Amino acid sequence: MFLHTSRLQFEAKPDRPDAHYARKLQELIGGAYGEMTVTMVARLLDNAPSEVTAQAVAGDPVVAAVIGGMDPQQAIVSGGGPTLSDSNGVPWNGRYIVASGNLMADFRANVAAEAQGRLQTARLYNMTDDTGVRDMLKFNLARDTAHQNMWLAAIEELQEDGLEGPISPSALFDEEHAEHAGTIWHNSDGPAGAEGGWASGTAPDGVHEFSYVMKPEPLGGKGSTPKPDPLLYATSPANLGLIEKAIRKLT
Amino acid sequence: MFLHTSRLQFEAKPDRPDAHYARKLQELIGGAYGEMTVTMVARLLDNAPSEVTAQAVAGDPVVAAVIGGMDPQQAIVSGGGPTLSDSNGVPWNGRYIVASGNLMADFRANVAAEAQGRLQTARLYNMTDDTGVRDMLKFNLARDTAHQNMWLAAIEELQEDGLEGPISPSALFDEEHAEHAGTIWHNSDGPAGAEGGWASGTAPDGVHEFSYVMKPEPLGGKGSTPKPDPLLYATSPANLGLIEKAIRKLT
Amino acid sequence: MFLHTSRLQFEAKPDRPDAHYARKLQELIGGAYGEMTVTMVARLLDNAPSEVTAQAVAGDPVVAAVIGGMDPQQAIVSGGGPTLSDSNGVPWNGRYIVASGNLMADFRANVAAEAQGRLQTARLYNMTDDTGVRDMLKFNLARDTAHQNMWLAAIEELQEDGLEGPISPSALFDEEHAEHAGTIWHNSDGPAGAEGGWASGTAPDGVHEFSYVMKPEPLGGKGSTPKPDPLLYATSPANLGLIEKAIRKLT
Amino acid sequence: MFLHTSRLQFEAKPDRPDAHYARKLQELIGGAYGEMTVTMVARLLDNAPSEVTAQAVAGDPVVAAVIGGMDPQQAIVSGGGPTLSDSNGVPWNGRYIVASGNLMADFRANVAAEAQGRLQTARLYNMTDDTGVRDMLKFNLARDTAHQNMWLAAIEELQEDGLEGPISPSALFDEEHAEHAGTIWHNSDGPAGAEGGWASGTAPDGVHEFSYVMKPEPLGGKGSTPKPDPLLYATSPANLGLIEKAIRKLT
Amino acid sequence: MFLHTSRLQFEAKPDRPDAHYARKLQELIGGAYGEMTVTMVARLLDNAPSEVTAQAVAGDPVVAAVIGGMDPQQAIVSGGGPTLSDSNGVPWNGRYIVASGNLMADFRANVAAEAQGRLQTARLYNMTDDTGVRDMLKFNLARDTAHQNMWLAAIEELQEDGLEGPISPSALFDEEHAEHAGTIWHNSDGPAGAEGGWASGTAPDGVHEFSYVMKPEPLGGKGSTPKPDPLLYATSPANLGLIEKAIRKLT
Amino acid sequence: MFLHTSRLQFEAKPDRPDAHYARKLQELIGGAYGEMTVTMVARLLDNAPSEVTAQAVAGDPVVAAVIGGMDPQQAIVSGGGPTLSDSNGVPWNGRYIVASGNLMADFRANVAAEAQGRLQTARLYNMTDDTGVRDMLKFNLARDTAHQNMWLAAIEELQEDGLEGPISPSALFDEEHAEHAGTIWHNSDGPAGAEGGWASGTAPDGVHEFSYVMKPEPLGGKGSTPKPDPLLYATSPANLGLIEKAIRKLT
Repeated sequence: MFLHTSRLQFEAKPDRPDAHYARKLQELIGGAYGEMTVTMVARLLDNAPSEVTAQAVAGDPVVAAVIGGMDPQQAIVSGGGPTLSDSNGVPWNGRYIVASGNLMADFRANVAAEAQGRLQTARLYNMTDDTGVRDMLKFNLARDTAHQNMWLAAIEELQEDGLEGPISPSALFDEEHAEHAGTIWHNSDGPAGAEGGWASGTAPDGVHEFSYVMKPEPLGGKGSTPKPDPLLYATSPANLGLIEKAIRKLT
Repeated sequence: MFLHTSRLQFEAKPDRPDAHYARKLQELIGGAYGEMTVTMVARLLDNAPSEVTAQAVAGDPVVAAVIGGMDPQQAIVSGGGPTLSDSNGVPWNGRYIVASGNLMADFRANVAAEAQGRLQTARLYNMTDDTGVRDMLKFNLARDTAHQNMWLAAIEELQEDGLEGPISPSALFDEEHAEHAGTIWHNSDGPAGAEGGWASGTAPDGVHEFSYVMKPEPLGGKGSTPKPDPLLYATSPANLGLIEKAIRKLT
Repeated sequence: MFLHTSRLQFEAKPDRPDAHYARKLQELIGGAYGEMTVTMVARLLDNAPSEVTAQAVAGDPVVAAVIGGMDPQQAIVSGGGPTLSDSNGVPWNGRYIVASGNLMADFRANVAAEAQGRLQTARLYNMTDDTGVRDMLKFNLARDTAHQNMWLAAIEELQEDGLEGPISPSALFDEEHAEHAGTIWHNSDGPAGAEGGWASGTAPDGVHEFSYVMKPEPLGGKGSTPKPDPLLYATSPANLGLIEKAIRKLT
Repeated sequence: MFLHTSRLQFEAKPDRPDAHYARKLQELIGGAYGEMTVTMVARLLDNAPSEVTAQAVAGDPVVAAVIGGMDPQQAIVSGGGPTLSDSNGVPWNGRYIVASGNLMADFRANVAAEAQGRLQTARLYNMTDDTGVRDMLKFNLARDTAHQNMWLAAIEELQEDGLEGPISPSALFDEEHAEHAGTIWHNSDGPAGAEGGWASGTAPDGVHEFSYVMKPEPLGGKGSTPKPDPLLYATSPANLGLIEKAIRKLT
Repeated sequence: MFLHTSRLQFEAKPDRPDAHYARKLQELIGGAYGEMTVTMVARLLDNAPSEVTAQAVAGDPVVAAVIGGMDPQQAIVSGGGPTLSDSNGVPWNGRYIVASGNLMADFRANVAAEAQGRLQTARLYNMTDDTGVRDMLKFNLARDTAHQNMWLAAIEELQEDGLEGPISPSALFDEEHAEHAGTIWHNSDGPAGAEGGWASGTAPDGVHEFSYVMKPEPLGGKGSTPKPDPLLYATSPANLGLIEKAIRKLT
Repeated sequence: MFLHTSRLQFEAKPDRPDAHYARKLQELIGGAYGEMTVTMVARLLDNAPSEVTAQAVAGDPVVAAVIGGMDPQQAIVSGGGPTLSDSNGVPWNGRYIVASGNLMADFRANVAAEAQGRLQTARLYNMTDDTGVRDMLKFNLARDTAHQNMWLAAIEELQEDGLEGPISPSALFDEEHAEHAGTIWHNSDGPAGAEGGWASGTAPDGVHEFSYVMKPEPLGGKGSTPKPDPLLYATSPANLGLIEKAIRKLT
């Protein structure tokens, strides 16, 4: 069960409204890595829709252009508040949640999400000089630092407690094709891939030895598919030779 | 520029068609962490739509039930082949791509994606005893092991080369509110959070000291929002006191 | 700020696992009107993925069919738990949130959402005879009754306090085209529309008089569009007459 | 079967093109509550893409900014016409349709949709002073008034005819946990919730008595989940005690 | 303006309910190429949700399996009717609409859509032996034949009237790089591409001469990107050489 | 298996950065018909986020407006590069792929896609005068010309080889209701539809004769639905007559 307090986790007031910046902050609310509180957005939109519109109506082309860059739904749909969308107005999506039940896999996902989140916050920090906005973002930056450290520590602890190794899941190593578990394939024409730490030596799991395959050969033969089902009309089933000829030409 | 060879990276043939399993394999094609080749799916669907349908039409309830569990679009839309969808038929989505330009943040996302991918492959491995399918999955498991190791090695190398520290991005540490960069807040009623490795000691970044806040207090006051814009009809603007009373009651 | 207690708002244990029903309960988690707690789903999935799979692998066609009807992602992606998706596996979407800032409009949306939610819960109640599941749904039904009543009471209070009238927003009545504000248009060929309470008499807002237009005439002339922009290649701009002939034929 | 007449339901011409406003009007076409005819949008876009672009190319920064705020797809994809998207360019979605088959639940949804629709139209009305655009919106406002009244009247009639009571569905009241069907829980720290009309007295359904629970206690014990399935790799199944310790720390 | 008649364009009754088939028919309602009337679906679902559920509750595993293959939302959300979703339950999406304003481009899209639609209808026809369902599909097949012919005839007429040539749009041929307008590049390792009608001779537009490039060379040099912006933290900007080394290794 | 060369298929450098245009080019990357290489976008964004932001921060309203029209995610999420989204920021979607397995149906879809693609490229060409950007688009236009011709030639060859006729699929012509396979229905009130090439004469398939039905009558009777299932609460099941009366009034 969740309880709610109307007191804010952190509070800061912007020096002035800024509807463009309000739109950008949406990335921290409804983007793939968003989780910020929203009061700030309402303050940044303060007066924007009607007062600025009034100026635009009066014919000021610059003001008209400013309005053009705003998120229209913050005014039309939400009445001057944030929406559960990213900075392009695309709604938040349940597939952003990562929860596999395997702690190592999920902790790695949490570190990655906090890293993207702090990076986006840092970029937004550089896009404003509003003291109040920056004050709030300084708090967010610090929390994202703490959270990255927390998940990194949790990963270390999982391994120290013997719950998981570095590779997720710690299972099926005896089943997998061992000869392909340490090789890195060179599939581009750049020269330098073989120089990296992943090209030789012991892998971070402490078990596998890296080796670098400079000219990887496909392991299978020419791809083929089963004979098409006549009732699905994969072209004329009575003339399969002709179909094969046509497909061969085009692939 | 990309070139294509019609030879397969790896090849294995299933012992027998299995339309249910073909549906599950879609998770590795069009799921958030999918990237498998697709020939296998066409083979698992071999004969499924028309021959099995013929049996169902003949009145066999078990066959009818089998058909019920298949992905309808594999037959109706794709003519017996895979689709660019996950195992629930939801289409692959451009937001699954993570490419921020910050190498540490992106390498962490790559490790996390390979971990989820190997985990899903391992679960699928346990859901079949088809020798051919398992042969292909043994190859996939090994490649996912190699790739997790590769990205972990790349992360180590980034740090050894002095390009990045463990926290992304390695910037704005002097700006962020330092007093909140090492604290972990206890927001649940369980007793044990304070025992973890993240509750005290030096954080994995080697810089911050962890401390655990057992009874975190909100740092801000009672949340408030700016006066609603009358032209957006946030209820009667002339009676703001009344609105505040109503809102106060309800939140 | 939100706090969390690990104690559950309500608790009930199913008599037995039921993976099909677990899938259906997803509608109350990630559907457009979902908000249920999720523990129950994990219990309904108990043992499903591996033990049932083992039987299926052993060749039991009925068990294979049962597996076919499960949500594959509950096993492959979430490791035996719920996902933030509806009963068809489509992810929850930020556009489901309704928050316009106008209290009357939003309270009406809340009543409507609680009504759809209780209806879905009632349908799910009839699809199981598991005592534990029904116990939980009896709690949910009661809460949905309470919440519908609460929002209906809030609507009454808004009107009694003079904050809003029945039509949202309570504004621009002097601006709108009054001659169209009380008429109901008959656009189908059924005979009975004119008999309803909306066909005559005073409307629920206490202001407008209903009237029923039996043979509504379009108020505008023949639709036209501006001359196409030559640089957008809306077919040959130099031959506009020809284009108009072609469009006229096809519409 | 549907028939179409090329005469417009209502017709009004804008005084001048306005590409920014054309974008905003998209909310009434492809937004969650949209249903407007589209001719108007094509007129507002008249000349916008090529002539304005020509000016922008000539170096006028204001014009460039105006273009920046336009919906790019109206020019690139639709050739100067509307799209089936909302004002942020997000496509209309089949989940916006509400049709449960229960008339009371669906009529409540219709009232709510018409309320949101009239609210959005009113906000758009205040964002332009174009006489032609306002003329069309005055028609839309009036129709939205009529439709809200119509659905409110239909709700009254359903109850008068004895088809439904105020709570949807009118069923399972004897099954639901009666002790939770009238209580409103206080889950926030504000003082005023207990003062509302929903805190005491007879509920709008005329059956339940409201009561307000000032300090609601969770009804269940500490949440638990079933033992993880070893074949789904919910961390090390052989060390369940360790997993439980890790989970306990983190939640 | 649209008018509606409650008479059906075509009417046929299924011999018996078939909830699995009702799900498949959804592809013709809410799939990318769907446009069918829906009454049929309600009939196919007749009795399915409650009567079949009752049997399932009584313990019949086959019936339970049948229910497992149904679309859960047809019962839970729509109360026994169709939804605006495809056969996997994914909602219809406004991006499926193609309307560029260029008649040749749009007529080609219409032919293609009718072809996919008739193909899906034909596949569905083979998946049932219900006389009533087949009767309706025979009507749909015929209409899809008529519509493909209609759009093919419209394409011929556009060209005969001199409105458009075969390539869309009929413009910028003097601007495009002529040396690349007739060449087909061989980017796979199959031998047969050079044998097709597209490898030599005059192209269908009657203007270009085809030629087949057996060993296509990239026309550009090694890809490069501009120097990363330090305020976006594309890794350490002060150490650009190191970054380039890291990127070079990995691509 | 795919191989990659780091050399570009074609290369051109823009004369100057243009963040607005970079956003528009996204339509060719992540739109329904997009497939362009992306280097160009990074160059167009060069310096945009930080340098232009610095000017905006310094108070230049024009610059602020320019920023307002940019795609926020190109800076915040992608660090100055493209995203896998269209020009409105909506992510690319797996449903854009058309691959039915029937070659004629799929080749028609390919012609249509190339036509829309060349049309969008041509529109974008007219929206810039940057020499470098135009150079790249001249290459893209030429390739789209070549590809439209290639698929048109492949369609001709399919028919010449006797693999398929013009209607997809070439099947079930004896089953479909022949009396509806050549008729075009006049469902609008325009006078001119009967004049087109589709109103009489032999259809493009060389088999059917067109005829134009000036006053089409619905072939079915009044639509009806099966008796609602009482356990789905399609309003009061005991009062079916009343429900029918209510439904009849409203449709």
